[in-house]
Amino acid sequence: VLDEGRFLADLEELGGIGAAPGEGRTRLALSDEDGEARRWLVRRMEELGLEIRVDGIGNLFGILPGEEGTEAPVTAGSHLDTVIRAGALDGAYGVLGALAVLRGVRESGTRLRRALAVAAFTNEEGVRFQPDMMGSLVLSGRLPLEEALAARDREGLRAGEELERLGFRGTDRVTPGAYLELHIEQGPRLEDAGARIGVVEGIQGIAWWGCTYRGQANHAGTTPMDRRRDAFAGVADLSRSLRELAARVPSSVATLGRVEVRPGAINVVPGRVDFTVDVRAEAPESFGRLKEEVPRLLREAAGRHALELEAEALADAPPVRFPREMTDLVDSCARGETDRVLRLASGAGHDAQFLHFLCPTAMIFVPSRGGLSHCPEEHTEAADLLRGVRVLARGLIALAQR
Amino acid sequence: VLDEGRFLADLEELGGIGAAPGEGRTRLALSDEDGEARRWLVRRMEELGLEIRVDGIGNLFGILPGEEGTEAPVTAGSHLDTVIRAGALDGAYGVLGALAVLRGVRESGTRLRRALAVAAFTNEEGVRFQPDMMGSLVLSGRLPLEEALAARDREGLRAGEELERLGFRGTDRVTPGAYLELHIEQGPRLEDAGARIGVVEGIQGIAWWGCTYRGQANHAGTTPMDRRRDAFAGVADLSRSLRELAARVPSSVATLGRVEVRPGAINVVPGRVDFTVDVRAEAPESFGRLKEEVPRLLREAAGRHALELEAEALADAPPVRFPREMTDLVDSCARGETDRVLRLASGAGHDAQFLHFLCPTAMIFVPSRGGLSHCPEEHTEAADLLRGVRVLARGLIALAQR
Ligand SMILES: NC(=O)NCCC(=O)O
Ligand SMILES: NC(=O)NCCC(=O)O
Repeated sequence: VLDEGRFLADLEELGGIGAAPGEGRTRLALSDEDGEARRWLVRRMEELGLEIRVDGIGNLFGILPGEEGTEAPVTAGSHLDTVIRAGALDGAYGVLGALAVLRGVRESGTRLRRALAVAAFTNEEGVRFQPDMMGSLVLSGRLPLEEALAARDREGLRAGEELERLGFRGTDRVTPGAYLELHIEQGPRLEDAGARIGVVEGIQGIAWWGCTYRGQANHAGTTPMDRRRDAFAGVADLSRSLRELAARVPSSVATLGRVEVRPGAINVVPGRVDFTVDVRAEAPESFGRLKEEVPRLLREAAGRHALELEAEALADAPPVRFPREMTDLVDSCARGETDRVLRLASGAGHDAQFLHFLCPTAMIFVPSRGGLSHCPEEHTEAADLLRGVRVLARGLIALAQR
Repeated sequence: VLDEGRFLADLEELGGIGAAPGEGRTRLALSDEDGEARRWLVRRMEELGLEIRVDGIGNLFGILPGEEGTEAPVTAGSHLDTVIRAGALDGAYGVLGALAVLRGVRESGTRLRRALAVAAFTNEEGVRFQPDMMGSLVLSGRLPLEEALAARDREGLRAGEELERLGFRGTDRVTPGAYLELHIEQGPRLEDAGARIGVVEGIQGIAWWGCTYRGQANHAGTTPMDRRRDAFAGVADLSRSLRELAARVPSSVATLGRVEVRPGAINVVPGRVDFTVDVRAEAPESFGRLKEEVPRLLREAAGRHALELEAEALADAPPVRFPREMTDLVDSCARGETDRVLRLASGAGHDAQFLHFLCPTAMIFVPSRGGLSHCPEEHTEAADLLRGVRVLARGLIALAQR
């Protein structure tokens, strides 16, 4: 029994936090806006009488005890942080979908063997602090807590300090017994296939670098083309060679997302560019090839323009495949709601990528209109959103009864 | 009789205005720092007893009357504004060189037939407000004053408002009878040739555009390469095609100097880039070809990535050749100081480019170490700076005696 109105109203209310007209919403991890979203969620959890837990990296859990207590809860969730000018669904949908399921279970008085939990993981997006999926990485033991807390944003602020400032540096320890993540697809595949639910079989590998090219700022009028050390020309050539790389490696993608050109004046040859590289592939051998080739391409473009290169690996999330029993469970739950089901891999990273190393994990996708995400135009029809929550409810209840 | 110590001290003092350690100095046109430099220069002019004039666009003149009065002064100068993180010499050298000559004439009691003037033209660099050479453009009648005053910076502030705010919106009218501009070369040709003085025969054409590519921000992981509308990929391809254009058109240059990528997040395909294009060539037919091809290349790269294009022409300064009698005069003045003289065209734009349309005009160059300018590393040896001022003194006195 899902309170659909309440769920949709919650989604809208949370979507208003950090919003600006025409610019979507921006809730960078551990910003004031993220803090506001966290406090909002805590109030919702309290209203439901959930037991609230916060761990060392600020992952937030609301637990509904089962007949056997609160240990190893069957967990669902996602994240509250967003990219810059984001849609209302990425992350928020999975958290509020889980909350809606727990609310339904609670309010209907359904008794379950195992505890249920809703989770909001810290810094999934990785826009402000790298690596992304930071909260789930720490929870899974694949990133030391101290290292995560020491991550700095571009102003030099540390994740740990920001967590303290917001009052979300906890001491609890929660270990999910199983994990289901409900998410919008963020890509075009469900829509292309006319499918209503995606059974996510795995997540592709993601590697990130933060880089700087240093050349020589000089006069745009007096400096002959063959004597320039134009840092922007270096990044432009890199853009082309990364796109060629993505064309060579099957089903891979490559993106230059942040590019800051200095000094940034109309008549000055750029002397410095700070930029990021994002490459992804599903097949482990393809992902390995990308990780091997990017540093070479970075050096090649630098060499061609006599630039100095600094490059730091910022994230390296391996491709994962969820266990067969979990994807089969999601598949059968999905088929309880629709027969338009597609099995696919996720192009985006998700906390499930690291929960996978901790407990049986799977994901449920709903379609994204036009395949758009990480932009204000991100949208999914309410009917699809609600269908996804019903699939999640089936999955959580099945797992909690085992 | 040149007070060398005083001249070098002035250069250092002016160079301190807007300076930051390790970052050169930034005195964007009509900023507070530009205002401070203007007030500093006014004090120097007053100390010398010059008659101070400020015209409608804020060009600043200090006049030393001749036997025939103050009309049509033989003028020398340049500009006080700078690019971002500039050297101490671009512009300042020409203003202070002229000031040093007027000081020498004044203090030695030399009597000249015609008046002399030192001039500091408004917004030569064009980094904050376009077009560049704004003050000399207005003075020459090639840009209506009202249009110049209405130019807006990227925050939407108008040049006219800023001029009022600084108290440099004047009502005087000064019409130079001849113009000599002393400047660092800003390029490598004098140094390459081992020459100490450059006789500038002309200035190459300069065309600027301010552009926007709009695509679609989207998720870096889920958006297949062939379905992206990546605004940065568009600018990267444009960078390559502009460099190919510069290679096709003899002795031309092309630069992408300002490039702002949005939203600028590591895992978001860029949905928008704002950027500038600067192309230059000396031969009129080459300059014409550049101006014809750039809009086509802008459209081509946009088309390849399904981007919307907005492009606005921001500056269009034609190539000029100074009159033979003026370059011959500079040549003979130069040979009074050294036999290592090179005739060359200027790669940078200068106020002389538009004074040329008003009165007999020429320029004197001194070498730039490593050909560097528009960067903190800009440097010229004191001996070269002083030699340039002596050549300027010979030229101004010869013209003022005619
Ligand atoms: N779901 C999602 O957008 N995650 C952010 C991490 C990434 O894939 O870039
Ligand atoms: N001299 C100088 O740097 N002028 C600025 C205008 C330009 O050439 O870009």
